[in-house]
Amino acid sequence: MKTTPSPGNSINLRLRYPNTIGKLAEVTRVIADAGGSIGLIEVVGSDRTHITRDIFVNTTGDAHAEAITNAARAIPDVELIDVWDCTFKLHEGGKLNVVSKSPLRDYVDLSMAYTPGVARICQAIHSDPSVARQYTIRRNTVAVITDGSAVLGLGNIGALASLPVMEGKAVLFKEFGGVNAFPVCVDTTDTETLIECARAVACTFGGINLEDIAAPACFEVERRVTESVDIPVFHDDQHGTAVVVAAALLNAVKVTDKEPGNMRAVICGAGASGVACARALLDHGIGDVISCDRAGAIHRGREGLTPAKQWLASVTNKDNVSGSLKEVLVGADMFLGLSGPNLLRGDDMRVMAANPIIFALSNPTPEVPPEEVADFAAVVATGRSDYPNQINNVLCFPGLFRGLLECGAGRVTREMLSAASQAIASVIPDEQLCPEYIIPGVFNERVGEAVANAVISVAKHPSLPKTPTYFEF
Amino acid sequence: MKTTPSPGNSINLRLRYPNTIGKLAEVTRVIADAGGSIGLIEVVGSDRTHITRDIFVNTTGDAHAEAITNAARAIPDVELIDVWDCTFKLHEGGKLNVVSKSPLRDYVDLSMAYTPGVARICQAIHSDPSVARQYTIRRNTVAVITDGSAVLGLGNIGALASLPVMEGKAVLFKEFGGVNAFPVCVDTTDTETLIECARAVACTFGGINLEDIAAPACFEVERRVTESVDIPVFHDDQHGTAVVVAAALLNAVKVTDKEPGNMRAVICGAGASGVACARALLDHGIGDVISCDRAGAIHRGREGLTPAKQWLASVTNKDNVSGSLKEVLVGADMFLGLSGPNLLRGDDMRVMAANPIIFALSNPTPEVPPEEVADFAAVVATGRSDYPNQINNVLCFPGLFRGLLECGAGRVTREMLSAASQAIASVIPDEQLCPEYIIPGVFNERVGEAVANAVISVAKHPSLPKTPTYFEF
Repeated sequence: MKTTPSPGNSINLRLRYPNTIGKLAEVTRVIADAGGSIGLIEVVGSDRTHITRDIFVNTTGDAHAEAITNAARAIPDVELIDVWDCTFKLHEGGKLNVVSKSPLRDYVDLSMAYTPGVARICQAIHSDPSVARQYTIRRNTVAVITDGSAVLGLGNIGALASLPVMEGKAVLFKEFGGVNAFPVCVDTTDTETLIECARAVACTFGGINLEDIAAPACFEVERRVTESVDIPVFHDDQHGTAVVVAAALLNAVKVTDKEPGNMRAVICGAGASGVACARALLDHGIGDVISCDRAGAIHRGREGLTPAKQWLASVTNKDNVSGSLKEVLVGADMFLGLSGPNLLRGDDMRVMAANPIIFALSNPTPEVPPEEVADFAAVVATGRSDYPNQINNVLCFPGLFRGLLECGAGRVTREMLSAASQAIASVIPDEQLCPEYIIPGVFNERVGEAVANAVISVAKHPSLPKTPTYFEF
Repeated sequence: MKTTPSPGNSINLRLRYPNTIGKLAEVTRVIADAGGSIGLIEVVGSDRTHITRDIFVNTTGDAHAEAITNAARAIPDVELIDVWDCTFKLHEGGKLNVVSKSPLRDYVDLSMAYTPGVARICQAIHSDPSVARQYTIRRNTVAVITDGSAVLGLGNIGALASLPVMEGKAVLFKEFGGVNAFPVCVDTTDTETLIECARAVACTFGGINLEDIAAPACFEVERRVTESVDIPVFHDDQHGTAVVVAAALLNAVKVTDKEPGNMRAVICGAGASGVACARALLDHGIGDVISCDRAGAIHRGREGLTPAKQWLASVTNKDNVSGSLKEVLVGADMFLGLSGPNLLRGDDMRVMAANPIIFALSNPTPEVPPEEVADFAAVVATGRSDYPNQINNVLCFPGLFRGLLECGAGRVTREMLSAASQAIASVIPDEQLCPEYIIPGVFNERVGEAVANAVISVAKHPSLPKTPTYFEF
């Protein structure tokens, strides 16, 4: 399996060498021959005879980085002054700062921000808890809560090791939604402790983003925390994924001219995101969904189903078919992969209906190599940034919480999720919509506001139902 | 009781009036006649005939603010355009922002700060938890944890209403120590839940500042959280107060030429700060300490003592005297008030030894009016910013945690507390030391660094004992 060099594995080589025509070409050639993908090249110093440059190089991993470093070091006349891992360097000291919104220049400032003035704010909140939204960070601050039990592709690495991801999430909240977010990594393997901590710290925040909590505990955590706090609770791995998948599907349906009610989708994966996506597809009118786990299609009558899978069996798979993933793919209009790398080859998917929609979201390695389905799939989406149509939750959660906080919503509802999907899909003008562009990029600045506005209009809509987002299995 | 107008009760009057000589004098005269203390006056607009000014006015409270507003409104030719409460205005939206240290300009940034690069940081921490200090916000972030059970002068107002104070504390951490701090208000009345939440969230932080937790629970919370986490835990109401009181005492002893070993101190108040201050005074060599609560001197043999008071009885009150506060004050060298307003009159304290040291720290109203002891006390300190010698915990905690975080200390020790007191005291050069200047002001920029350096040198000192700060009753 060929691995593409990634900035996630980038190194910086600081090299000093004679400032002669052609020397940089030699250096870049050596790096290229070693398989390194060069990004930014900067001059950090020069004198009459020599130049010092920082060369940013994407690698495929630590061994590759070392090989590239050794190759650079071996170039005649080139001195390797320094080399560092750019990702580790970026993480030095963490990725967040907490800063004061109110300067403390003198006793007047101090008397208002702290004692004695602050006591009046405390008393106002004590008399009427609802004003806390106005006079505290609750107004614009989300807790990113996890127990580290299902982190990215890493699995159960625990709360401490999950902290860099939660910090990253907070960075995304800020950069894409203008929302303050702070990590709350809860060091526990006990669901009750996680629920109790989330409930107890909720008074500091205006919203809770549950993150990277393993199924099936995540379903109960979401439901019980939602029921015990007065702020919106959102499990991004479930609903964030479902919102963005649905957004992409809405546009994929447009470009393929399929009729949703006649479509059959096969979902590979019945974890947190698989369950939520199955519901979202049905919510958006897809005619039939068949969910598969390692044992194949989930159907009524199958033995040993967890409560989540029992629920899937009850609402999906209209014809109650059984069989392996490959078997149920026959004639399907859509494949949605939320499982693991390389489960299928392109040829396995030629059995699908004409112009199939293939979302292979396992990351970084999709369920099927996108190259192998390119000739027959109508639309292909992945979780990666280096293929077209990246399904990325950052399209949803920053704008979603921006909207929730702006309108002071106490809950996330399924109606908001559907509206968020529509909003994301609608950011691409019809004339730009095409098989390679069904979902906006994460740096599209219109997405956050579109999602926020959609959430606010749903929250304020008196006649819409207030369907909870959580599952009751 | 005369109340001084405070910026904590300030209002801003926006007034528009004819731009004629003498009109501002008339306006300020009316505000002064109504008892308002004027601060900043700004011009916010003017035209050919009129001027609009913002006038910042300290008041004694809401009724006074309304009276001043009405008086201003009644001035002929003056239009009251707007009026607002400056403290409430300052708190709009809270006092903290969470910002990203690493910009997200493109996919390269995203690949390093978030997936896929972040996974490598997570794996590094999973392999070696100690590197979390290097690559996460743990390196410079403190949790300000409370249950809101003993807030300022407000008592048990609960976690939500305490949030503005905890935000203020975080502002102080940042402004005076460069330390990131974030509020963790724990909504519970159960000590076990508070302890478990503090323990569980500790993995996100490099230190824990326990705040405004009522005695006696605070003692157990501090001890058990300390024992269960790998980061320093500090209960500011106990040890922060004790550090600053001891710092002031060190200098008060210098200016009065008293011999610590011969001194007897009487402490009024046996709550969290009273217990910690008694120990600190003994740690700094004061010959005898008598602690009093509402029932008078705490002595061995007194019935119904709590564990904390039993401990006080065992280590203080050498001669095991009993009696009321006023009775045990006879001949005392020092009075330390950590209780409530106006418990004593100046004449009650004339029974003390010559040149008594009087620290009346109840805030905002001291245990004794400072004016009434001015003629016989050698040194007077209060908790207020508008008298000389303000005892303010902000002299301790920002520098303390800055030092703890910089050297990666896993614990606060009593040796660090003593060193912090010495460091604070030493900031005032001998030639400037005088009865009205025994403790640096909170805006003295040398304090934070002095305390941090003291903590670091103690932490690194191999032969110093590592005495825990908590009490075991």
